[in-house]
Amino acid sequence: MAIENPRKAAIRVAAAELWAASGYHGTGIEELSQSVGLRRGALYHHIGSKEGLLYEVSRAAIVRLLDATHDDPTASAEDRLRALSRQLMVDIAAHLAEWTVFFREVPWLTGEWRAEVFELRDRYEAIWQSVLDDGVATGEFRPLGSLAVKGILGMHNYAYLWLRPHGRLRPEEVADQFLEVLLGGVRRPGTRRPAHPSPKRR
Amino acid sequence: MAIENPRKAAIRVAAAELWAASGYHGTGIEELSQSVGLRRGALYHHIGSKEGLLYEVSRAAIVRLLDATHDDPTASAEDRLRALSRQLMVDIAAHLAEWTVFFREVPWLTGEWRAEVFELRDRYEAIWQSVLDDGVATGEFRPLGSLAVKGILGMHNYAYLWLRPHGRLRPEEVADQFLEVLLGGVRRPGTRRPAHPSPKRR
Repeated sequence: MAIENPRKAAIRVAAAELWAASGYHGTGIEELSQSVGLRRGALYHHIGSKEGLLYEVSRAAIVRLLDATHDDPTASAEDRLRALSRQLMVDIAAHLAEWTVFFREVPWLTGEWRAEVFELRDRYEAIWQSVLDDGVATGEFRPLGSLAVKGILGMHNYAYLWLRPHGRLRPEEVADQFLEVLLGGVRRPGTRRPAHPSPKRR
Repeated sequence: MAIENPRKAAIRVAAAELWAASGYHGTGIEELSQSVGLRRGALYHHIGSKEGLLYEVSRAAIVRLLDATHDDPTASAEDRLRALSRQLMVDIAAHLAEWTVFFREVPWLTGEWRAEVFELRDRYEAIWQSVLDDGVATGEFRPLGSLAVKGILGMHNYAYLWLRPHGRLRPEEVADQFLEVLLGGVRRPGTRRPAHPSPKRR
């Protein structure tokens, strides 16, 4: 992507706010042009198309997150996981409208735009996967199922629905609560049951 | 809600499929009337309004889940958590379109409809919270942060984005992978670090 002009960045931010509040399909281009103070023609000159703008909003979120993620493979897997977790919660809280659009509206992207955003999302998931894999390889983590990464990321991502930028807990504290569960488990040490779950009681 | 007639149930299922595929705001009432073979007037006779139908779809999902959830307070907290987890993943997999609408489109409900669906959702979350609380009270679980329940539910709920009804793993196996992480944690026993996390290395 070429270096962005400030007008285009402002349109992207306004679109994220409007779509987070009223939905991508639920918001007309007229509302967007009013919000940014551009006539329809001038707006389309900047964005190309509504779907093109959805692509820009979605791409900006995941690219910013990838740029802000500096995984240090020499650190312990636990420290790496904590850094990823905190970084993700901080970014979701700081850009809640953008992430709301990302998690809810990305299905409406088509073709190459869709493929590119999904590829970036996969690249981000792969960072988490590599931390888990390294932790298992060094013996720091237990062997994990193939879906552990999706569950762990889901725990974080789903927070876009209830996380508030100025909530009681800072995003880093939210991350630390998640990490407390994820690293140590809810089971109290010493009460560990057999490796194979007993049958359901009902 | 009065006992539902079959036609209305069929409309609800068709709406869930259409909205999951194309979005609530992205689907016109015309597509829905074609899908169920009713003229527009007859369709409105059954559903009242489009938002009323969104309410019915959302409510049906959470009511069915609540009805299917038989938490047994005499069982161990671990067994109760596993039963909840499996039940939720089975229901999401079996009714993926409905849950996609629930997780993505519920923000568009307003007024009493919104309040009722949110209240039902809170009632469901309270079941999970009580299992966690009981586990902590009996010493089976470690003390947990106030957001643990949201993280644990988020891990499950977010699966609507990638879970497939006929995927490689059965929904119960997906649940068991989540439980493996949630109960025991990813940290290998014996490598436990101090209770207070060390500062980030960067």
